[in-house]
Amino acid sequence: MRIALLGGTGDIGEGLALRIGRDTDHEVLIGSRDPEKAREAVADYEDELTSRGVDATIKGFVNEMATDRADIVVLSVPPYYAGDTVEAVADSLDAETILVTPAVGMQGDEDGLHYHPPGVGSVTELVAQRAPDEVPVVGAFHNLAAGALSDLDTELDLDTLLVADDDDAKSTVRNLTTEIEGLRALDAGPLANAAEVESVTPLVINIAKYNNDMHDVGVKWV
Amino acid sequence: MRIALLGGTGDIGEGLALRIGRDTDHEVLIGSRDPEKAREAVADYEDELTSRGVDATIKGFVNEMATDRADIVVLSVPPYYAGDTVEAVADSLDAETILVTPAVGMQGDEDGLHYHPPGVGSVTELVAQRAPDEVPVVGAFHNLAAGALSDLDTELDLDTLLVADDDDAKSTVRNLTTEIEGLRALDAGPLANAAEVESVTPLVINIAKYNNDMHDVGVKWV
Repeated sequence: MRIALLGGTGDIGEGLALRIGRDTDHEVLIGSRDPEKAREAVADYEDELTSRGVDATIKGFVNEMATDRADIVVLSVPPYYAGDTVEAVADSLDAETILVTPAVGMQGDEDGLHYHPPGVGSVTELVAQRAPDEVPVVGAFHNLAAGALSDLDTELDLDTLLVADDDDAKSTVRNLTTEIEGLRALDAGPLANAAEVESVTPLVINIAKYNNDMHDVGVKWV
Repeated sequence: MRIALLGGTGDIGEGLALRIGRDTDHEVLIGSRDPEKAREAVADYEDELTSRGVDATIKGFVNEMATDRADIVVLSVPPYYAGDTVEAVADSLDAETILVTPAVGMQGDEDGLHYHPPGVGSVTELVAQRAPDEVPVVGAFHNLAAGALSDLDTELDLDTLLVADDDDAKSTVRNLTTEIEGLRALDAGPLANAAEVESVTPLVINIAKYNNDMHDVGVKWV
């Protein structure tokens, strides 16, 4: 498959690009609003993978072109750009392109981070609402620590939760997730259950803040 | 210490009574609105512990009397009773009594359970608001699977998150938690961070619903 990471120059995008590049045979397409930025990120990721003896195919494009070429499009953009990014690439999406959203709305104060979803209930549901009707949307990769994900020296042993209304799309994303070493995908139900999944993201950051011996906190459901 | 479990005839109360009775030297006081119900629960718990060769001290009282005698009071009541229960026992609370709240507001529909906090933001904060000002409040034991907790044949390996504004009270509850075999306490910050902790409870129930091989789901932060 071809997997586009829109906002693939950011931290979750970097981690997914490196892990998918190292652990799977899929082709990674880095998308950015600025094609030059995408190409620079590609060069960095290829250097990192080559230094580890991995020969992965990564290419850089503007978001629309990356989306047009992809089987799975991951919206690894900040939450406040998620809706607009979907609309910007909408013409390149179709029923055969799975749209994956890992973004979470949060607000910080002196106590820590707090879950701050959009009015529709969750960023995941916002993305589904803004995407063309026929495009299957899957919420995934919400609660992964970006630092651990992008450091290939870190052996992962983490769970990620999937929400989707389309079982085939969910199954495809589950298979992709399972190909990444140390990641397990669990089903959290339909898109309507996304808020409880997303709200774990500020929580893992709060746990890292308040427990001195914990960094890059992730989660295992047992 | 003396630990009162108000609503100690329910499932989380049962689990905490059995685990504290088996794993610690603290005295367990079962509280109920109906003293007869409290005494019946005590008889059941003592039978269960005796059958395992454990000689634990458990006593049953009406909630007010259990609170009056206790160093730690756990509000193991349904969320919609939490505020009223605090007010019912308020005269028996004081600055030396730690009030612990594990309750979570949830609503179910065909998709699963959804987090449904009271207007003040979380049940934990509601309890703090309804308690006399000088009483230290700690949120704890929110995300424990009641079935696993109350089955002493199940070896736990679970985390529970603590939220409190009073560091001494948090530390006391942390020590109690750590005495229960297989439970680890992590700090999630002040009471203002309770909502993200509470919202994990519907999530673990949704994970159990949508993954056939998972039951009594709990969580480890890694």
